[in-house]
Amino acid sequence: MVNHKNEKGVQHKTGAQIGERKIIEIIKQHLEAMPNLPVPFGDDVSAVNLDQGQVAVLKTDMLVGKTDVPKHMSLWQAARKALVMNVSDFASKGVQPSAALVALGLPRGLLQKDIEEIARGLNAGAREYGAYVIGGDTGEATDLIISVSLFGTAEKQALMLRSGAKPGDILAVTGFFGKPAAGLRLLLNNLFVSANLREVMLGAVCMPKARLKEGLALGKTGAVSASIDSSDGLAWSLHEICKMSGVGFNVTSVPLSEEVRRFAEFNQLDPLELALYGGEEYELVLTVKQKSWVDAAAAVEAVGGCLLPIGKATKDSQVLLDVNGKKQIIEARGWEHFKSQI
Amino acid sequence: MVNHKNEKGVQHKTGAQIGERKIIEIIKQHLEAMPNLPVPFGDDVSAVNLDQGQVAVLKTDMLVGKTDVPKHMSLWQAARKALVMNVSDFASKGVQPSAALVALGLPRGLLQKDIEEIARGLNAGAREYGAYVIGGDTGEATDLIISVSLFGTAEKQALMLRSGAKPGDILAVTGFFGKPAAGLRLLLNNLFVSANLREVMLGAVCMPKARLKEGLALGKTGAVSASIDSSDGLAWSLHEICKMSGVGFNVTSVPLSEEVRRFAEFNQLDPLELALYGGEEYELVLTVKQKSWVDAAAAVEAVGGCLLPIGKATKDSQVLLDVNGKKQIIEARGWEHFKSQI
Repeated sequence: MVNHKNEKGVQHKTGAQIGERKIIEIIKQHLEAMPNLPVPFGDDVSAVNLDQGQVAVLKTDMLVGKTDVPKHMSLWQAARKALVMNVSDFASKGVQPSAALVALGLPRGLLQKDIEEIARGLNAGAREYGAYVIGGDTGEATDLIISVSLFGTAEKQALMLRSGAKPGDILAVTGFFGKPAAGLRLLLNNLFVSANLREVMLGAVCMPKARLKEGLALGKTGAVSASIDSSDGLAWSLHEICKMSGVGFNVTSVPLSEEVRRFAEFNQLDPLELALYGGEEYELVLTVKQKSWVDAAAAVEAVGGCLLPIGKATKDSQVLLDVNGKKQIIEARGWEHFKSQI
Repeated sequence: MVNHKNEKGVQHKTGAQIGERKIIEIIKQHLEAMPNLPVPFGDDVSAVNLDQGQVAVLKTDMLVGKTDVPKHMSLWQAARKALVMNVSDFASKGVQPSAALVALGLPRGLLQKDIEEIARGLNAGAREYGAYVIGGDTGEATDLIISVSLFGTAEKQALMLRSGAKPGDILAVTGFFGKPAAGLRLLLNNLFVSANLREVMLGAVCMPKARLKEGLALGKTGAVSASIDSSDGLAWSLHEICKMSGVGFNVTSVPLSEEVRRFAEFNQLDPLELALYGGEEYELVLTVKQKSWVDAAAAVEAVGGCLLPIGKATKDSQVLLDVNGKKQIIEARGWEHFKSQI
């Protein structure tokens, strides 16, 4: 890899060499911080104080055709996914989104029917979670760009941030992992699976679901000490909570979807790799105060979901997988723009 | 031009053939409308009702390197402009922006110093108008994409919408027109001008200013019946107010910048074309109730600006230029993505 040099002879790497997370760090260093921010920079959402303990919750996440849309995904699905990935961040904070704005960059060659399909996908993604698309912007771009901004309001005290986990808290997730990672491998490598498995995995890639019901129900219990979604992968989410809360984790089970177990076995893939380091997954990863576990689990069950305990927060700074007496480190890696490829 | 056909044999045009404004119409048709929207779809900003007569004001506008950034513009200037064009929409409604989120699409080859320059430009654009960048998203894209979302709160009753102009209201603008259009022609066609004129016009292109002080001051007077910014050109803004308010305009003067008059004369260009149909211009275009004119003009002067009367709202549906007894129609055209080129 060749590094460029600037006028002063200082080496300068390209975005591709730096990677998404370091780029965000660099940008943050040049931004003057807003005083009294109710949510720290780098959490799943941003927020601004309103009156009487309320906050305006804001999120923007951009879908880019080239890097975020596998070729089997329709435009309707891509547009819907652009909404879902923003809703998932709201879900992880326990906030109901009310309105979305969408900035579209459209390649010149898109047909009217393509544009209609995108519009219908945006509307479907918003309405599925009780929000509305209320405005936006349209222009021309080389790639398909769907940049969604989501808005909602919440009680500041009720927000489930990444930063509140304490040693002893129960680590939990809202579902089984690995299907989107398996689906992407399926698409890229033409692996063999049964039609049934194929459908399940491609469904996970093309029709992701945000755990909004679960997040809202958990938010009302006050039982959650820290929360994040798993869009960059389970491992990465665990490390983010660790970093923001100053804890470690002892993970005693990784909830692997049964289909992924079969898929991995048949294709001689490591199922843990698929479940831990995949990304494009929209489960919630959270910590629950021990004494409130039953309340939290009951709240999720009451909305038709399930809360799966997978370990405990510890005083250490490491994330340890500890299953059947076999211990291994869970690494801080996952999906990253500029570095990962679909 | 070749039209494509879909499965049912219905002709389908490409985005390039449809044009930005028709694309927005098509998208809108497929969106379920949010009940009780405080600002109609298609105004300069969107809004959501909060408690006690307050609204959350939201705007997203995307800058795309290929179509919105002439080659003389630095990355710092492009990033700043991405903020300014959003702030201008807030200015036209009389709303102070408080926070911005930025979704960035970065070409792989950008260097670290380029990314730092973009970050500094974003911060500068926000801070210049009292706002902060509080979050965002970063990914990879072929074009440089800077998608800004702006947030603020306001009294619903104080918003200056496009829709309140009445026949007899005074039509006014906050400055002189034509410099950005002249600057773009200068960049594209290598026209000859003095160094001084060149600097003025390129400054208008690369360092646009939003009329936020003026908009906020006007908002407080309650004197304004309709307002819009002129980012798609003066002519287009006039037609938009006409459409949304159900009025026409008799324009009796077009405030042309003195530099543009000289530039046009020297290069045998039509100065009216530059002033009316240019775009990328961030003056406010508004109507003021006759009895409140003095209040409005005084409020703008008090913040160091000027309010220039240029005509009157009429009962007709047409926009007429009526100078020295010579009448001509001002057409509904201006800057449009997919159709206009820089």
